[in-house]
Amino acid sequence: MSDKNASSFVPSFVPPLKVSMIVIGDEILNGRTADLNGSWLSKYLFIKGLEFKALRFIHDDIDEINHALSASMNESDIVITSGGIGPTIDDKTKNTLANFFQKKIIERIDVADIVTNNYAQFGRSWTPEQNRYHFFPEDFMATNNPRGLAPGIVYFEETKKKLVMAGPGVPREFTEIVEKEFYPLIQKYFANRFQENYQTVIRTMGVSEEKIFFELCPTLWSDLEKFGKVSSLPQTIGIDIVISYHGNLLEHEKAEGEIKKIIQNSALANHVWQYGNRAVNEMVLDLAIFKKRTFSFAESCTGGLVASKITDLSGSSSVFMGGFVTYANEAKINLLGVKPSTLENFGAVSIEVATEMAIGALLKFKTDYAISISGIAGPTGGTLDRPVGTVVIGFATKNKSGARKFLFPGDRIRRKERFSEMALLTLLKLMNEEI
Amino acid sequence: MSDKNASSFVPSFVPPLKVSMIVIGDEILNGRTADLNGSWLSKYLFIKGLEFKALRFIHDDIDEINHALSASMNESDIVITSGGIGPTIDDKTKNTLANFFQKKIIERIDVADIVTNNYAQFGRSWTPEQNRYHFFPEDFMATNNPRGLAPGIVYFEETKKKLVMAGPGVPREFTEIVEKEFYPLIQKYFANRFQENYQTVIRTMGVSEEKIFFELCPTLWSDLEKFGKVSSLPQTIGIDIVISYHGNLLEHEKAEGEIKKIIQNSALANHVWQYGNRAVNEMVLDLAIFKKRTFSFAESCTGGLVASKITDLSGSSSVFMGGFVTYANEAKINLLGVKPSTLENFGAVSIEVATEMAIGALLKFKTDYAISISGIAGPTGGTLDRPVGTVVIGFATKNKSGARKFLFPGDRIRRKERFSEMALLTLLKLMNEEI
Repeated sequence: MSDKNASSFVPSFVPPLKVSMIVIGDEILNGRTADLNGSWLSKYLFIKGLEFKALRFIHDDIDEINHALSASMNESDIVITSGGIGPTIDDKTKNTLANFFQKKIIERIDVADIVTNNYAQFGRSWTPEQNRYHFFPEDFMATNNPRGLAPGIVYFEETKKKLVMAGPGVPREFTEIVEKEFYPLIQKYFANRFQENYQTVIRTMGVSEEKIFFELCPTLWSDLEKFGKVSSLPQTIGIDIVISYHGNLLEHEKAEGEIKKIIQNSALANHVWQYGNRAVNEMVLDLAIFKKRTFSFAESCTGGLVASKITDLSGSSSVFMGGFVTYANEAKINLLGVKPSTLENFGAVSIEVATEMAIGALLKFKTDYAISISGIAGPTGGTLDRPVGTVVIGFATKNKSGARKFLFPGDRIRRKERFSEMALLTLLKLMNEEI
Repeated sequence: MSDKNASSFVPSFVPPLKVSMIVIGDEILNGRTADLNGSWLSKYLFIKGLEFKALRFIHDDIDEINHALSASMNESDIVITSGGIGPTIDDKTKNTLANFFQKKIIERIDVADIVTNNYAQFGRSWTPEQNRYHFFPEDFMATNNPRGLAPGIVYFEETKKKLVMAGPGVPREFTEIVEKEFYPLIQKYFANRFQENYQTVIRTMGVSEEKIFFELCPTLWSDLEKFGKVSSLPQTIGIDIVISYHGNLLEHEKAEGEIKKIIQNSALANHVWQYGNRAVNEMVLDLAIFKKRTFSFAESCTGGLVASKITDLSGSSSVFMGGFVTYANEAKINLLGVKPSTLENFGAVSIEVATEMAIGALLKFKTDYAISISGIAGPTGGTLDRPVGTVVIGFATKNKSGARKFLFPGDRIRRKERFSEMALLTLLKLMNEEI
């Protein structure tokens, strides 16, 4: 901030609280378990408006814990660890933390009470002979563990104002201890530094990152940076542009309104299919349930993936009646009623065949809507007219039918993904009467 | 190593190569995306016999990348990063790495060739006006990106013998670049510290880790440890037991033969479905092509996922004729010819209905084999008799038909995965005449 700008308005800026996490244990680094706590915490902190500064996975080793603690305390206000607080020999977190802050481990009656309480919630009793949970670093705080036995371990370092909290590794215990025990402590120790955090997500399709920012809208990135931190994320059928900013709900709504205006007046407008963060299968299912409409699919090149994406969602059986996977031409004829002459005259990947496939599915499943997919996922099967990556998406309702042709890049798997998302997006537009 | 043991035989011990990984990018720390690259690399390194020392998630920020690089190079021989190598302003990895090693970024013709090549594999052309991929740190090495556009970035630091490799964030691109480009470089730069590393993988199904090692085969773990490092990994439908050992190919083949003998004589024998590391959809497709046999599916609860797994593979159209997704009971009746009385008497999730579904698919698609899947993926829909997680897998050929019932744990998505793998495994056994 230069002196020359001293007269201009500068909003009071509270730097967001920073959190670093250390996941302690061998199981994730040696491929036995997929991480759940880190990815859960990333979502939780974002919602709470805290900045997730860094996430480290290390082995249950004293030196490694010490190094990770130092680095985390340097970069963040709050350090949360998961794992290594159990009663066995390979659980080193409690002792390492005590050493790190040069605290002695002593027998503590107050901690014994908490441990007794933790056991009691499972109808079990605890005695000091069972383990050493009640041996605890002096000046540390123990918390309840609402879904487990080992107490949470907390220390607030007064001089540097750093809050260190160690929770269990078991995901259901970890998430609960963070919500019920750790978060209230963050609110207490950092009451003066709390603020809310918002995002505007612009979901586009059919246009590459380069094309958006170098060709269509060369000033968009800097225009959006006036609102907050900008990032762009390649997704299945297009690029998501994400603007993150602090403020209250009112400010968020104002910023989002202005961002939308910028986009609607830009060359990107026609490529935006959603302001928000929802998956297209969820949007389809919710809309169909809301409208009380049923649908079905006839899939060729996507080979069942479109149906699978819908049936990933609980509740889909109320509106999704089923689908055909008609890979072979005979199946298209025998099961969907596609005319042999249509196949012969136009080929399987054509507006005409896709339309007849959609009509076939609509009639066989007696649904309100039907979507068909016929294309070339590759790597072989392309022609000059219809190169690999060509897909035709057909649609049918009682009143209308038709199809649209697209070309997608990628390899076989990615094309299947893209064809499927485009099929679901077509169904969404069909239900919204945008087709 | 004490002097007292100096006379005993000590095999020459080469300390394992250590790898640290840095995942760069905001999308994981702010909760938008779940990590896939870190967890994939943990499994990959394990298989390759390298030690995964630490995994860090940081923001796309110059200071953070610098800190993480220093720490990673201190603790490991090899540093792999993912993310931040794209063409937009928030991709900072290339510049930061150049700075870190005090290298200038220059326009490089050799890198332009690699970029051109990367674009060409998608049928696209590249010109220097599109982006700055060809501006590259001097003395660095660029690699192909077999599934993407941005070249991989590699630097070998001669004095400390550290290999730093930066790959893309997109999981499909990352895994491929590690396998095809980075791993051969590790072999090259650390040839003297590389031991040939072999594995025997025993893939089991239908039995838990505890049951295998505490009940069925209590001495198995220690018996296998005579051959090398033993570990067990829970997979979709069962436990993989992995024995890793160093040595040459001949020794490997001998060890594998002996291991197989041990397993075949154990109580685990009936639960083993593969010695090796192949995916079940590949095994099904290869066998069907080899036997020149066709197949089809009738899916209820898996909702198209079984068909989608097969159609993920190029060449599937020669043997996979198609499938039904019959979510609704009417569809089972109208399209597959399941008798209403069978549905009424036995319920949709029954041996009887699954058998009729398989026969229906066999007749409609005129295939040599058909497999059906009917079950309860949950979270709702369970009963006392048929709890959530119950699945019946039916099968039919010209000569025989039938079905088998299973119960799988997990959530909805995981159950769909498990049901689907079991369906493919059933088809494999059917083709092998093991049913």
